[in-house]
Amino acid sequence: MVIVMKAKTPRANIDKLIKKLEDMGLGVHETIGQNYSILGLIGDTSKLNKEQIEVYDDVEKVMRVQHPFKLASRLFHPEDSVITVGNTKVGGDNLTIIAGPCSVETEEQMIEVARDVKRAGATLLRGGAYKPRSSPYSFQGLGEDGLKLLKKASEETGLPIVTEAICLDTIDVVAKYSDVIQIGARNMQNFALLKKAGKLGKPVLLKRGLSATIEEWLMAAEYIMSEGNEDVILCERGIRTFETYTRNTLDLSAIPVIKEISHLPIIVDPSHATGKWKMVRPLSKGAVAVGADGLMIEVHNNPECALCDGAQSLKPSKFKELMDELKIV
Amino acid sequence: MVIVMKAKTPRANIDKLIKKLEDMGLGVHETIGQNYSILGLIGDTSKLNKEQIEVYDDVEKVMRVQHPFKLASRLFHPEDSVITVGNTKVGGDNLTIIAGPCSVETEEQMIEVARDVKRAGATLLRGGAYKPRSSPYSFQGLGEDGLKLLKKASEETGLPIVTEAICLDTIDVVAKYSDVIQIGARNMQNFALLKKAGKLGKPVLLKRGLSATIEEWLMAAEYIMSEGNEDVILCERGIRTFETYTRNTLDLSAIPVIKEISHLPIIVDPSHATGKWKMVRPLSKGAVAVGADGLMIEVHNNPECALCDGAQSLKPSKFKELMDELKIV
Amino acid sequence: MVIVMKAKTPRANIDKLIKKLEDMGLGVHETIGQNYSILGLIGDTSKLNKEQIEVYDDVEKVMRVQHPFKLASRLFHPEDSVITVGNTKVGGDNLTIIAGPCSVETEEQMIEVARDVKRAGATLLRGGAYKPRSSPYSFQGLGEDGLKLLKKASEETGLPIVTEAICLDTIDVVAKYSDVIQIGARNMQNFALLKKAGKLGKPVLLKRGLSATIEEWLMAAEYIMSEGNEDVILCERGIRTFETYTRNTLDLSAIPVIKEISHLPIIVDPSHATGKWKMVRPLSKGAVAVGADGLMIEVHNNPECALCDGAQSLKPSKFKELMDELKIV
Amino acid sequence: MVIVMKAKTPRANIDKLIKKLEDMGLGVHETIGQNYSILGLIGDTSKLNKEQIEVYDDVEKVMRVQHPFKLASRLFHPEDSVITVGNTKVGGDNLTIIAGPCSVETEEQMIEVARDVKRAGATLLRGGAYKPRSSPYSFQGLGEDGLKLLKKASEETGLPIVTEAICLDTIDVVAKYSDVIQIGARNMQNFALLKKAGKLGKPVLLKRGLSATIEEWLMAAEYIMSEGNEDVILCERGIRTFETYTRNTLDLSAIPVIKEISHLPIIVDPSHATGKWKMVRPLSKGAVAVGADGLMIEVHNNPECALCDGAQSLKPSKFKELMDELKIV
Repeated sequence: MVIVMKAKTPRANIDKLIKKLEDMGLGVHETIGQNYSILGLIGDTSKLNKEQIEVYDDVEKVMRVQHPFKLASRLFHPEDSVITVGNTKVGGDNLTIIAGPCSVETEEQMIEVARDVKRAGATLLRGGAYKPRSSPYSFQGLGEDGLKLLKKASEETGLPIVTEAICLDTIDVVAKYSDVIQIGARNMQNFALLKKAGKLGKPVLLKRGLSATIEEWLMAAEYIMSEGNEDVILCERGIRTFETYTRNTLDLSAIPVIKEISHLPIIVDPSHATGKWKMVRPLSKGAVAVGADGLMIEVHNNPECALCDGAQSLKPSKFKELMDELKIV
Repeated sequence: MVIVMKAKTPRANIDKLIKKLEDMGLGVHETIGQNYSILGLIGDTSKLNKEQIEVYDDVEKVMRVQHPFKLASRLFHPEDSVITVGNTKVGGDNLTIIAGPCSVETEEQMIEVARDVKRAGATLLRGGAYKPRSSPYSFQGLGEDGLKLLKKASEETGLPIVTEAICLDTIDVVAKYSDVIQIGARNMQNFALLKKAGKLGKPVLLKRGLSATIEEWLMAAEYIMSEGNEDVILCERGIRTFETYTRNTLDLSAIPVIKEISHLPIIVDPSHATGKWKMVRPLSKGAVAVGADGLMIEVHNNPECALCDGAQSLKPSKFKELMDELKIV
Repeated sequence: MVIVMKAKTPRANIDKLIKKLEDMGLGVHETIGQNYSILGLIGDTSKLNKEQIEVYDDVEKVMRVQHPFKLASRLFHPEDSVITVGNTKVGGDNLTIIAGPCSVETEEQMIEVARDVKRAGATLLRGGAYKPRSSPYSFQGLGEDGLKLLKKASEETGLPIVTEAICLDTIDVVAKYSDVIQIGARNMQNFALLKKAGKLGKPVLLKRGLSATIEEWLMAAEYIMSEGNEDVILCERGIRTFETYTRNTLDLSAIPVIKEISHLPIIVDPSHATGKWKMVRPLSKGAVAVGADGLMIEVHNNPECALCDGAQSLKPSKFKELMDELKIV
Repeated sequence: MVIVMKAKTPRANIDKLIKKLEDMGLGVHETIGQNYSILGLIGDTSKLNKEQIEVYDDVEKVMRVQHPFKLASRLFHPEDSVITVGNTKVGGDNLTIIAGPCSVETEEQMIEVARDVKRAGATLLRGGAYKPRSSPYSFQGLGEDGLKLLKKASEETGLPIVTEAICLDTIDVVAKYSDVIQIGARNMQNFALLKKAGKLGKPVLLKRGLSATIEEWLMAAEYIMSEGNEDVILCERGIRTFETYTRNTLDLSAIPVIKEISHLPIIVDPSHATGKWKMVRPLSKGAVAVGADGLMIEVHNNPECALCDGAQSLKPSKFKELMDELKIV
């Protein structure tokens, strides 16, 4: 950690702060510049909050040198993490394709879509049973009934299940039926849910929050990992910007950043990012070319009747075409 | 709702869509322009999702005419809501001042700060017992012990309590001790928590999410209200923008917007928005001048030793000065 | 254009507005809903400003149906534009690779880099002679001397030149030496410069502004095109968001959007978007996979001594590797 | 400047960089931490670009300690700047009120509005003769004819003139007629225009760019000041965020920030920030309460017929009411 003291801070005040830091067991190295003094801290600063230092009137600013995450950091875990999910692996040289409808609606729909996506090359099956909806008047998902239908479709096709847990009250039942527990964008900083997800012994797919920095996202992963669960799969799904033509702005530059500073696998969800099925194909190809470990794509056998987010769902035939194109990339 | 059809859509396709909408019980009024046809829908479109219409290939875009919230809307509730909290009222002509430390730390701290803020003119007491922290390694609050200390300070001073509930597992205990349940920015779209907060029979202070639009914020209020609890107090606390000099950008223009489209009271938290105590004074005065119904301000008797967010806390003497200045505004 | 009248607007006021609109030569079609009346306008609304209508107290909101750009719109020009630049073509099935240093520095540097990028497969040569710098104390470019060096390097290699014009006083001299005139992100809404660029008879490369919506960007193209110059090449170079890990956020989803609503070619500049050379390779591959018509990449023979933006420049050997990889994508 | 070296950088590479920095005349102070080495630079680093250091593969990050602006910095100019404009002063204890129509349209309009705003208490007169419009098809202003009308209105009322210069070709004629040259948000980084504005011997009103950080804004002021013109008035006019309810988000927290780090006066334009006249009143009061040195407000005698931005203009009677309220704040 580096502390920049305000210009013209009296010597005595600097010495007092140095004393305080030393009392905390830290080494302090001072650089006296023309206008500013800079204190470089030596030792374990991971428990020290920037705010505890910024509070001093004489402090101009405080800068972290080290990332605040440890378990998620490549610095302490140089090899890529590869996560086993049922009969498939996520990360490393594997290209994971998670496909399925936004919401589980009927048995017929689930079985049909599951078969279609399996045939086209998907490696995991998705489908929402508990849906976080911005309106209390919108369809909120079938709940455990939906999980049962997902399970049936999974047994039919052999595809492991990814489905979202939205609250502490229902995460256990989600864990019972699913192979991967998804934490959605809106819950990325629902810390109680993250801790719980860290204790259930199943891999977790962690979506990036709409306005989460990459550092905050990795700190959310750290919450899960610090409970003993190292199987975290990151999922970029668009960030909120001023541009309104697309629902959100897919941040593909996050992929090489994550690859550099973390060892966790990262997949991309172009369906939610753009909200438009026509954009799923080009952005899927882009995500793979940039180096994503996989994709999460909404597929619905009848998007026009989908109970939510139909506009961003591919029909199975379009999904098949995309999968064929990806084999070439 | 207004539907814009793509240029050159075949007549038959437009007719098919009109038929479909009419089958849903809606009236459809078509305007045939030079390049585009526009369909105006008549009837209750509140259950119709934009996405269900956007899914059609022939649809260029869909625009909502009516706000998606009802209970929170001024259209259906023209008078300002005034909410009773213990011996005080929030909204209307009242200026609510919520003050206290970021975290509850010790009995001594709580009693001292509570007395100081009471003396200076605060009308409610704040203090966090459950703290949502971006790092799992940071202090997470004293939990129920903290609530007990808050209660003691409240009994000493007569100030009602506002404190945050961060998860389903602990919201009941929060409701037991507090007079107002706070839902924090990170949980603004934790829908399960919102629904629960709507059932506990206590007023709810709902902070705006870091990247929440005003409409999403009012939809979050709608979640609480649709469970039967109309006592919702909104709290603007800064939004996330590209500017990094302040922690977030306080959006004071949200106040007149809320006043126009909703009847709910709105207060402002300048401490969290800026992260710097020096900016609390000018922005507090600005918030009141813009028309906020109150302020939420962090006050700590020893900011330099605060376990979190000391940098944004006022000392009691500075808080007193601010209160005196506000009397003049 | 669709006008939504406020709830409870008196009939007489609606009629008055309709009359006014009809006097402007527009047809007006009214849809009377439960709470709101909607007016659909028929006729040429391209000269009508939204603001002129929003000014009425009875108007709730005004929504454009048609894009405000015409010459840049695919609606009126369904085929892709292909632009001839010297011996090469931009758009259609061509993959344009513009490469070269951020700034022109010395003859030796320019000739060496030009030969290297030519050998690796670049189709155009870039290099800044006039540099827009955020500090008045930074190197501002060699001016006309730099243009002469560029010209020499172009003659040596046969690569046409792309270079930036930053003001009315120097755009003529830029046009004299260069084959494509670049308008930078900061000048995307420098309307006087756009108009001038539209009159010089040379193709224009128009970078997206840091906070420009896609619509504003196409309106900037419209400025150039409305002066008679239809040869506009768009260049996505990152937008400003809250994320600070990368300098800007490269918006690759803009590519399919542009392809859908415009006929103009679009290329991508990953160097400026990220500010880090290590991210240029993955994002270049992503951009091509998403469907970009080309790339603009900074290459410097000695990045450590570059007078600006060295950190985002590839060495010629790295550029060669990237070009080889792109051939496979 | 502080340089953080990557973890595990070989000793020799660190020494090589230190040597290089010392050769540039800088002192280098090294702090060796657990995982990272930190170099603190001593001496004048104002000409050193961050990019020149970030280019080294061994460098993790580079952090500026000192603001990059000097002439605009309070560090080197502790007293508030007070700027004389005709018979009035901007900054210090003065509350500057700039009022007038968005565009100059007719003599009658200008004279009438000028008299009205003068009577209500305005201290300067505004009006656009050259208008930067996002569409080439929109009204672009009356040009020099507009300036003449402004001059007439100024002579009638004694109010000095503020009007915008949009390009190098017309800034001289703007300077001839006006007392303050306005540089608009879109031209905030039109560096050629800034330099020219610095040479004309008239005060400059510099609007903040839509996505400009406070630092970039002050660097734009530095461009003007470095040409010898220290009379710069800053104008906050809203920044671009994800919120679409208001046209832009007025950043009132910028005011205390500017007051802390710069000595320049700062005024606020609530009309452009919100785009809605109803929000002008509350935000004007808020701006003054936060500590702004003044306001810039659009007033039109007939907003419904205004050629641009009528929706954000106050009628003279509303402006009068606002001025009366401000006297109380």
